[in-house]
Amino acid sequence: MTPGSRHRDSSASPPRRSDAERNRARIIAAGRRVLGRDGLDASMASVAREAGVGIATILRHFPAKEDLVAAVFADRMDAYADAVTDALDDPDPWHGFVGYIETACAMQAADQGFADVLTMTFPGAKALEKRRAEAYEAMVRLIDRAKATGRLREDFDPSDLVLIHMANAGVVNATGQAAPDAWRRVVALFIQCFEAPARGPLPASPDHDALYQAMLRASPAGTITPEPARDS
Amino acid sequence: MTPGSRHRDSSASPPRRSDAERNRARIIAAGRRVLGRDGLDASMASVAREAGVGIATILRHFPAKEDLVAAVFADRMDAYADAVTDALDDPDPWHGFVGYIETACAMQAADQGFADVLTMTFPGAKALEKRRAEAYEAMVRLIDRAKATGRLREDFDPSDLVLIHMANAGVVNATGQAAPDAWRRVVALFIQCFEAPARGPLPASPDHDALYQAMLRASPAGTITPEPARDS
Repeated sequence: MTPGSRHRDSSASPPRRSDAERNRARIIAAGRRVLGRDGLDASMASVAREAGVGIATILRHFPAKEDLVAAVFADRMDAYADAVTDALDDPDPWHGFVGYIETACAMQAADQGFADVLTMTFPGAKALEKRRAEAYEAMVRLIDRAKATGRLREDFDPSDLVLIHMANAGVVNATGQAAPDAWRRVVALFIQCFEAPARGPLPASPDHDALYQAMLRASPAGTITPEPARDS
Repeated sequence: MTPGSRHRDSSASPPRRSDAERNRARIIAAGRRVLGRDGLDASMASVAREAGVGIATILRHFPAKEDLVAAVFADRMDAYADAVTDALDDPDPWHGFVGYIETACAMQAADQGFADVLTMTFPGAKALEKRRAEAYEAMVRLIDRAKATGRLREDFDPSDLVLIHMANAGVVNATGQAAPDAWRRVVALFIQCFEAPARGPLPASPDHDALYQAMLRASPAGTITPEPARDS
């Protein structure tokens, strides 16, 4: 189907184990390049083209785009969750909090696809969402610790981290390679205004359920109807 | 061509003046709805469908998507430029500066398409870019006045306004109708950290040329090849 394919892509017989594993790795690597370059709106077809496999092969491994997104970003979500754990180990809670925000935003800047993943939720991708939930729990502890030192403003809400990531994604996506460091200034501004004492009250945080709905709504629309699963 | 069209869309004879004017108004109104709802990635075809005219009619009036974008957002760009002028009339320069940021960001929140227009540049749309250039000149005066009072931090750069709009577009686009007021908290945070004295130094502003390149790069890619212009 795709000229560049070195592997068969026929439904005549189930592929051998090693073929299936190789195809899966090849698709994930291609997905990393394509989603990193074009963001989450990239089509499954363009990932298949990049991987040199047919669309049937992709659907066998990843019945929905959400599954592919989860596989592509699994290691980055791990690194993101690890960044919170590292921050909790910092003996200076404020320093740990600031370092965590800088690290997480740098991860967004390094990868346009991941910039969006951090502001979306993928209910079907259980492992990814489990890691995100763990990271969230750790983040709440990080915030509480930083507030306890008096350095973080009292009205900081965990949902503010989601808002920062949404804002940072906007800057990263708009400036891209033309001004690749622009996000650093925006994030530095945010951090300065998180520092206590607050200069004034803030409008209320968005309702957490509403924000969750927004994260659902922003998920990639191009989910492909699952096809019957096949062995591999 | 389109069933809903009440006007002819044939190339047999040039349409009467009033038909042409009516079609143009109808396309702009449809463009406002479609681009406001779907953002600037919306296709010319979907605007034609919404307007109930054929693609040939749209191309006669707006040879490139950039032309349609300029026509649809002309009045909003006027309102945006007026907001700066109003702010300059405020006897309290800091109050004028803050009010301007709130107004401009509210305009972004009210219209997803305009949220993006403010962070892009459309070299082919002369009238739109002229208004933007005028607004920019006025903004520089607004910033200088606010700095002169000592209320605005000294290292605030006009390009920071572009960065705020990029960040705000990220929040507006991600939260949408699910959490429609979330942007207010983000903008309030920004404003608090613009207030002097600065709590610390900031990373350098992006180079202005680089930021301009970024704004060019973010323009809608879906420009349609111009067809021979026809009377109307």
